[in-house]
Amino acid sequence: MIPLPHNLEWTGDALRVLDQRQLPSAEAYLDCRTWASVAEAIRTLAVRGAPAIGLAGGYGVALAARAHPVGGAEFEAAVRELGAARPTALNLGQAVRIVRQAALDGGAAAAPEAALRAALALHAQDARQCARLARLGAELLPSGADPAWVLTYCHTGALSTGGVGTALGAIAAGFRRGSVGGVYACESRPLWQGARLTAWECGRLGIPCRVLADAAAASLLASGRVGLALVGADRIAANGDTANKVGTYALAALCFRHAVPFYVVAPSSTIDAGCPSGQGIPIEERDAREVLTPMAAPGAGAFNPAFDVTPGTLISGIVTELGVLRRPYRLQGLDAGWGGLAGDA
Amino acid sequence: MIPLPHNLEWTGDALRVLDQRQLPSAEAYLDCRTWASVAEAIRTLAVRGAPAIGLAGGYGVALAARAHPVGGAEFEAAVRELGAARPTALNLGQAVRIVRQAALDGGAAAAPEAALRAALALHAQDARQCARLARLGAELLPSGADPAWVLTYCHTGALSTGGVGTALGAIAAGFRRGSVGGVYACESRPLWQGARLTAWECGRLGIPCRVLADAAAASLLASGRVGLALVGADRIAANGDTANKVGTYALAALCFRHAVPFYVVAPSSTIDAGCPSGQGIPIEERDAREVLTPMAAPGAGAFNPAFDVTPGTLISGIVTELGVLRRPYRLQGLDAGWGGLAGDA
Repeated sequence: MIPLPHNLEWTGDALRVLDQRQLPSAEAYLDCRTWASVAEAIRTLAVRGAPAIGLAGGYGVALAARAHPVGGAEFEAAVRELGAARPTALNLGQAVRIVRQAALDGGAAAAPEAALRAALALHAQDARQCARLARLGAELLPSGADPAWVLTYCHTGALSTGGVGTALGAIAAGFRRGSVGGVYACESRPLWQGARLTAWECGRLGIPCRVLADAAAASLLASGRVGLALVGADRIAANGDTANKVGTYALAALCFRHAVPFYVVAPSSTIDAGCPSGQGIPIEERDAREVLTPMAAPGAGAFNPAFDVTPGTLISGIVTELGVLRRPYRLQGLDAGWGGLAGDA
Repeated sequence: MIPLPHNLEWTGDALRVLDQRQLPSAEAYLDCRTWASVAEAIRTLAVRGAPAIGLAGGYGVALAARAHPVGGAEFEAAVRELGAARPTALNLGQAVRIVRQAALDGGAAAAPEAALRAALALHAQDARQCARLARLGAELLPSGADPAWVLTYCHTGALSTGGVGTALGAIAAGFRRGSVGGVYACESRPLWQGARLTAWECGRLGIPCRVLADAAAASLLASGRVGLALVGADRIAANGDTANKVGTYALAALCFRHAVPFYVVAPSSTIDAGCPSGQGIPIEERDAREVLTPMAAPGAGAFNPAFDVTPGTLISGIVTELGVLRRPYRLQGLDAGWGGLAGDA
């Protein structure tokens, strides 16, 4: 086991970001000294993963509070741009709002310090929530004689969060207990987060990992080799409909067909209790070139949504730091998320 | 519309093969002058597509009949190696057996000529069958005011057959009638047959084509934008279970969920009437490097089946040159395939 590098680190005057676009070839870092460079890092996926982009957004607001008078037009424009850097993950808008409010509450002179304190607190809170998700998620793993192989999608490890990760954190905890034999990692086209990042993080953690084409998950599930599927989430509606990396829905539907338990592992900051169903979740469409380069024949168009929505009816359970939620999901009244900062601290 | 090049052409002393591995970057040809070079072209996917590899295998036997005394050990070894170059597509073994028998029936002196005649006859027969598949398949397309967009997988056009193709041939026929608006082509990892070949052939035929990550097909189907799905087949068992490019099963399961008609288009030479169900179909596992190169983190393993099996219960119909077969499939007694050569000629 090789320790994982920090994906997000406050250096005193900058947010240092591990550039995930360059993994696994290189461990390179970006020092973001301005809110605009943080927004750019989020937009271009140098930092990715719903909790991690939320935390980065929070640090971005703290950088904005150093550069501009809080509450002024420039500050508010920065807050808006950071919050809109990517549309689907709920955590980003939440974190940006929380750190903005802390800056405003701090008042003119204390705003930079208050905003930074809030961003650091969110980071610490996410680390604690990840630890709890990992414990709760690992308890779902069958404790039979044969350790289970777990199917996962995209990347949900430490790189995606402020702590040990969500789904992959739970898998790693299960591996340490001996209840996980290894990970089947869907490669997660078009941006390869599974092949690049999950395989890399599993390698660091000493967890056996087999990569598969996303399209091969169906026959893998039919073969009976998967004990459990664990994935992350970018936004969860009140009825349990879950937006996550495009391909998650197909995985859930196939798990359902083959009676393989399918769990979402995500902090409650991902739950959008005010959104009744998945139809209300904005789905980011990304540049056609992500799909077309370098293989597609010239002249072809593309369909490139970054996320899809898995109906809550296909999800065996949603593991949050508040506990494991079960079908039918009725999350309307849930007092969840980073809004409950003080209570959880 | 730009005419398509010949994918397989007998030059008088060689089988000229359009090297599909180099498309869409280059239109390059291999002149296979020996049966061994034909086997190598099949194994390495220079020629691919179930009907096309069958035809290539037939020409390979004709080359073997020129090089070795028919019925002798070297000839029989060549026949075995050609037939086993890839395990899943039924057409290969069938074509190899038919051309071998023609060589044996020709007798020592006439064997080379008889074998070549049989290989050419199979090629011509496949072209006729493709034309009929295209007509029958195009009739399935709704003829409403709005032309339908058709979802397809892997590549099933002229390059994959001895004629206009199977599923893509039907799509092209529908496009000419005005009942097809365009094609959604799943990229078909790990070897990109959709992104590379389907998009290329659609471009040549003037059919609008949008490429998507295989994992995005589920949300495309959920969006209601797909009128019909048409795919090919490598082997169809008696109960309709169909082996095709890995990823087809997931597509069929999602089409079923969203009530999108899902048809297999394949010549009857693909039907293995003696194989009761998909469990009896051998599935080729290919080199891990196809999945791991170049993106996966070092140290990862892979799961890389080239095909999967779609249960017949998910298939709305199977379009063959004999007609459109419907659920429940009972193909045990079917007198199908290239075996019926004379009757069909």
